[in-house]
Amino acid sequence: MPIDTRHPKDIRSDIRAQKITGITAGLGQGFVQANLAVLPKDHAYDFLLFCQRNPKPCPLIEVTDVGSPVPAGVAPDADLRTDIPKYRIYKDGVLADEVTDATPYWRDDLVAFLLGCSFTFEWAMLEAGVRLWHIEHGKNVAMWKTSIECRPAGVFHGPTVVSMRPIAAADVAKAVTASARFPATHGTPIHIGDPAAIGIEDLSAPDWGDAPELRPGDVPMFWACGVTPQAVALASKPPFMITHSPGHMFITDVPNGALAAL
Amino acid sequence: MPIDTRHPKDIRSDIRAQKITGITAGLGQGFVQANLAVLPKDHAYDFLLFCQRNPKPCPLIEVTDVGSPVPAGVAPDADLRTDIPKYRIYKDGVLADEVTDATPYWRDDLVAFLLGCSFTFEWAMLEAGVRLWHIEHGKNVAMWKTSIECRPAGVFHGPTVVSMRPIAAADVAKAVTASARFPATHGTPIHIGDPAAIGIEDLSAPDWGDAPELRPGDVPMFWACGVTPQAVALASKPPFMITHSPGHMFITDVPNGALAAL
Repeated sequence: MPIDTRHPKDIRSDIRAQKITGITAGLGQGFVQANLAVLPKDHAYDFLLFCQRNPKPCPLIEVTDVGSPVPAGVAPDADLRTDIPKYRIYKDGVLADEVTDATPYWRDDLVAFLLGCSFTFEWAMLEAGVRLWHIEHGKNVAMWKTSIECRPAGVFHGPTVVSMRPIAAADVAKAVTASARFPATHGTPIHIGDPAAIGIEDLSAPDWGDAPELRPGDVPMFWACGVTPQAVALASKPPFMITHSPGHMFITDVPNGALAAL
Repeated sequence: MPIDTRHPKDIRSDIRAQKITGITAGLGQGFVQANLAVLPKDHAYDFLLFCQRNPKPCPLIEVTDVGSPVPAGVAPDADLRTDIPKYRIYKDGVLADEVTDATPYWRDDLVAFLLGCSFTFEWAMLEAGVRLWHIEHGKNVAMWKTSIECRPAGVFHGPTVVSMRPIAAADVAKAVTASARFPATHGTPIHIGDPAAIGIEDLSAPDWGDAPELRPGDVPMFWACGVTPQAVALASKPPFMITHSPGHMFITDVPNGALAAL
């Protein structure tokens, strides 16, 4: 993956000018990247409550004021309508458009939610010396729907989605403590070991992403995944919703390490 | 203080029967106690967002469904209308009544918020061997308004209120790490040292509680305080609000230690 070590302000400027339109992996090294979910105010209370009740799949790091595209808490000079490389526009829960500038779709009644993503805890694990198969092999992490129901809130309900990483048995404890430092980016695993215990039948057939290779002695570790809130929100068929396109994240001004020191 | 080591269910049963009407310090040893704030649905979104934006003074541990008095996530068989020893009823931000049973005031449009309280991190510090002057002397902790403004949300805005504990210099690091384990009960201090730096002029004149004695070598440590959300909510003069009476907390079924292991 390309490595771009400039400050997020400079990278977002290139994204706003549509000089960068691809995925954000490797961009803004060391800074927190975030998932985007934008909903009308009518749905915002239920969604905010859903995130409060399900903090591991839905770790909120920012909620904008109604109608404002400015994520004042994590990047005060950014504009969420233009500073993400690619957006998906949903109407009644169905994909209606994919755009590099969401300005034409912005409305005065929208609220933007930013949620922590796995890049941050993966960074912490790599820094701690934990090997991650999907990164070493340039693959997407594997994800599954589980039998673990989220706690519902208003119109939103559905299963927890997890990402799975095979970890060498000797590194399992290290992977727990490294990810535990980052509750705002999914925190500790929600399950370690037998996939069947959380309703996953076949580790070679993920619902999303690429099936990883389990080497002898590897233990499957399952973290709550940011796909959960998007899947749950779309399942409720909101009349209107904007998200980032997969892999095309928002890059904040918050250093990864700062999230661990709150 | 009296020590009651029964399970919270038994203690809440006595509170519901009005056999216990006093403060809850010393009751339900080892279980999380919580502050109560009840607001009409019209104000619930702004309050939920205020808590999300200000997690250190406003650490949410539960939000009920609209109209439901059941804190399903932390005490599924409890009733928030009856299971707190004493309530305050506010109309237009002014104290209108103090009652031991809030049932007559309950409405279908109310949402109850439970927020973590300092008992849990004080327990963690005591377990770690940190001495706390106000507990040793049977006093209330000292609290001040500060010059640190909360991040506003909708109709809610105001200063952060802190509690201060004088800690022996050799124990300051221990007090930080012990409280850091409990982000859901205010977490780490927001300031250590010079009171003037956060707008506190006189450590002998707290805005609430009892002025503590600073022994030679003590360092003043300031934690965000659960008085903040109540003060902020009342300052906005909501048409209707219910809170617990000071010191008369809700006792959950959640062991203190469980909050640190999420």
